[in-house]
Amino acid sequence: MPERRGLLVILSSPSGAGKSTLARRLMSWDASLKFSVSATTRVARPGELEGQDYYFVSEEKFRRWVKDGELLEHAHVFGNNYGSPRGPVQEAIDAGRDVLFDIDWQGAQQIQKSALGSHTLSIFILPPSIVELRRRLISRGQDTADTIAKRMRKSWDEISHWDGYDYVIVNDDLTETEEKLKTIIRAERMRVAQQPRLLDHVRKLQNEFEDLT
Amino acid sequence: MPERRGLLVILSSPSGAGKSTLARRLMSWDASLKFSVSATTRVARPGELEGQDYYFVSEEKFRRWVKDGELLEHAHVFGNNYGSPRGPVQEAIDAGRDVLFDIDWQGAQQIQKSALGSHTLSIFILPPSIVELRRRLISRGQDTADTIAKRMRKSWDEISHWDGYDYVIVNDDLTETEEKLKTIIRAERMRVAQQPRLLDHVRKLQNEFEDLT
Repeated sequence: MPERRGLLVILSSPSGAGKSTLARRLMSWDASLKFSVSATTRVARPGELEGQDYYFVSEEKFRRWVKDGELLEHAHVFGNNYGSPRGPVQEAIDAGRDVLFDIDWQGAQQIQKSALGSHTLSIFILPPSIVELRRRLISRGQDTADTIAKRMRKSWDEISHWDGYDYVIVNDDLTETEEKLKTIIRAERMRVAQQPRLLDHVRKLQNEFEDLT
Repeated sequence: MPERRGLLVILSSPSGAGKSTLARRLMSWDASLKFSVSATTRVARPGELEGQDYYFVSEEKFRRWVKDGELLEHAHVFGNNYGSPRGPVQEAIDAGRDVLFDIDWQGAQQIQKSALGSHTLSIFILPPSIVELRRRLISRGQDTADTIAKRMRKSWDEISHWDGYDYVIVNDDLTETEEKLKTIIRAERMRVAQQPRLLDHVRKLQNEFEDLT
């Protein structure tokens, strides 16, 4: 029986547009979805868990992974390295599970070029307004004014790449946006290429047809 | 302001797989959707309405339309001609309305090649079983055994082209299939290319960003 390879679902947005919350909601919606946990050289923020939010690794280990081709994509942001380990993704798609990536536009482009043999779909979440975006960045209460200004510039850099994505959603309402994300994933799963097992159904129909005529 | 061109949504399936009912349900779901009424040279069946189910035209008129390029696609089936008039479709997509086609695989291929400048998405509805398909063809009570046998062969010819479509749905349950069709159309409308007005939103964000930094 022909087996399905998992989809690569890329979610990008500027910081503060609700992406992490949305990714978490998608993960609890569909247990077959696999979240690609990024590796990073930055230190953990309060509450962040190793292996769940990130793999926290040393500069040395990160460089070795890059050299050995162990990362599907990697980027340098605000002095820290971030990357997507290949192993867990490869394992998931081989088992027919779709993989969700929470990465920026640079990572998205690298994933789309990676030769994983899976269909990639990319979704960009736009904020309803920049004022609102800044408000959310400030309300985290973790960053200095300088850091917030830097994040705002990075946010704009991110937004400016919105039209390189397959789908775009303006996150006016978190629940509506969650529904829209599910709609996109559900639809992509109905593509012919995503349903290799339909071949068995068509063979069954053919046998029935031959028996009847 | 950049304007959206309507999508071309092609629905194909063997006769008796529920396609007409599904097309009707989609039309009552979304008033902005435009149904492409086919022209045919066959006589109207009881209950069929001119301009709603088909445009019933003479052989002479049909041939003139083909010659003048007035049909986006046309096919000869069981001694009758069928085709999709270009005018109403062009008008609808120019106004940003999506158009729904209920046509066979030959028509689908011709629509996809037609230079209408719109994105085309094609959906194939598979029956759960051939026995069920034949039951539905017989229960119409309109056809002779010979006609039913001919329709069954045509049905198989249609089914054999299932994998040339973008999406495939097995119609196990009419309401579920209706939901799946809506999911596909909703998702396709979230594609970047289908939302040219987002450019205005991004410009608004850019102005806000420049005011704040």
